Amino acid sequence: MRKTPIWKAIADALREDISERRYGEGGKLPTEAALAERFGVNRHTVRHGIAALVDEGLLRSRRGSGVFVSARPTDYPLGKRVRFHENLIAAGRSPLRKLLHLETRFATEGEAIALDIAQGDPVCAYHGLSFADEQPIALFESLFPLERLPEIETALRTINSVTKALTHVGVEDYTRASTRLTAVRATPTQALHLNLIEGDPLLKSTSVNVDAQGRPVEYGRTYFAGDRVTLTLEN
Amino acid sequence: MRKTPIWKAIADALREDISERRYGEGGKLPTEAALAERFGVNRHTVRHGIAALVDEGLLRSRRGSGVFVSARPTDYPLGKRVRFHENLIAAGRSPLRKLLHLETRFATEGEAIALDIAQGDPVCAYHGLSFADEQPIALFESLFPLERLPEIETALRTINSVTKALTHVGVEDYTRASTRLTAVRATPTQALHLNLIEGDPLLKSTSVNVDAQGRPVEYGRTYFAGDRVTLTLEN
Repeated sequence: MRKTPIWKAIADALREDISERRYGEGGKLPTEAALAERFGVNRHTVRHGIAALVDEGLLRSRRGSGVFVSARPTDYPLGKRVRFHENLIAAGRSPLRKLLHLETRFATEGEAIALDIAQGDPVCAYHGLSFADEQPIALFESLFPLERLPEIETALRTINSVTKALTHVGVEDYTRASTRLTAVRATPTQALHLNLIEGDPLLKSTSVNVDAQGRPVEYGRTYFAGDRVTLTLEN
Repeated sequence: MRKTPIWKAIADALREDISERRYGEGGKLPTEAALAERFGVNRHTVRHGIAALVDEGLLRSRRGSGVFVSARPTDYPLGKRVRFHENLIAAGRSPLRKLLHLETRFATEGEAIALDIAQGDPVCAYHGLSFADEQPIALFESLFPLERLPEIETALRTINSVTKALTHVGVEDYTRASTRLTAVRATPTQALHLNLIEGDPLLKSTSVNVDAQGRPVEYGRTYFAGDRVTLTLEN
């Protein structure tokens, strides 16, 4: 087992505090003296931990007035209607989706089960990157059943929104039928796209959206950067 | 950026396939030749990747009949009523909770907000480890407001179920009000408890349970081992 330097453990603890919004909306951190007491270390070590988070852009130091939270993870609600653009705007972020690659391929066994089609049926695969305020937050692959939605590939190529592209091909509304969540390590390619380090934790979501008749219209795999997004569920 | 050996990338891809249940209930993997073709490598490299997953206990090799999935991640539904014991039994697993530490302490600002009490009010903190079929799957800290539930500490010390302990102190029913999910790296202590390696991805859940009157009765932080649990949501 590798040994974590103390300043790094402090940075990790503060990162978690920030993601739990422990420092309120103003986002002012306790003083170095208070943090030194909390962690049972000297102020130099606390300063080292804080400096690491300043480097990451998570904290900002204002001379004479203290240290403040600068970047809070984006809240991303997982309800019955999951809409990327609406979710980001509701979180006060500026959404952007970038198309990486669009292709037609054959569904694997698992994909066919999820989309309620036959294995080997053609699907349109949309690979993209999602941004919040110009920071990459998620990498995704969305699959659409081509026999059910023959015009979807053209629509996705010209319309930069899944919701609008689906409306364009006749799917007036769609709802989230199921979501499966787990945590994985970023592969080198994922890390490169998301501006992370290989092995960083990603929140992986596998989801199915269905139309008003309950037919699957989208099967998606999304990899959210663990420290930039918090998925939320309210009952 | 560190470079991932190819056999490790193959092990990671197969691990994801397994977590997506791509190999069905029988769980038989494609042949080495088919996997070698899929990954564009030789069979020796495929064998190395499979051997790593056999070591982890995720795959099992049966001489003459092929390689099978032995351990599937436990499905853990996140609905309006989240019950550890019921969830595990529904997933066909044998549940067990081990008490690590029980203490009375003062609520921090964030904890007080979540529990709707005042900062510094006493809370009972229950640290524990959850198992599925004797394998550790989650590490948790649950906080209970002591002024609202003065007998909870004694109940938790003698009754090995949060649901039953809450019933015992007069909370007949409770429901999940909110859940927040993110992915984090395992700290050395977490890794030790969960039998993981430091830095392995954990799915972190922060949740609030409320009684029939909507008053918070439990604020929990749970760290699920990323490759052993899949949180599921059905609409």
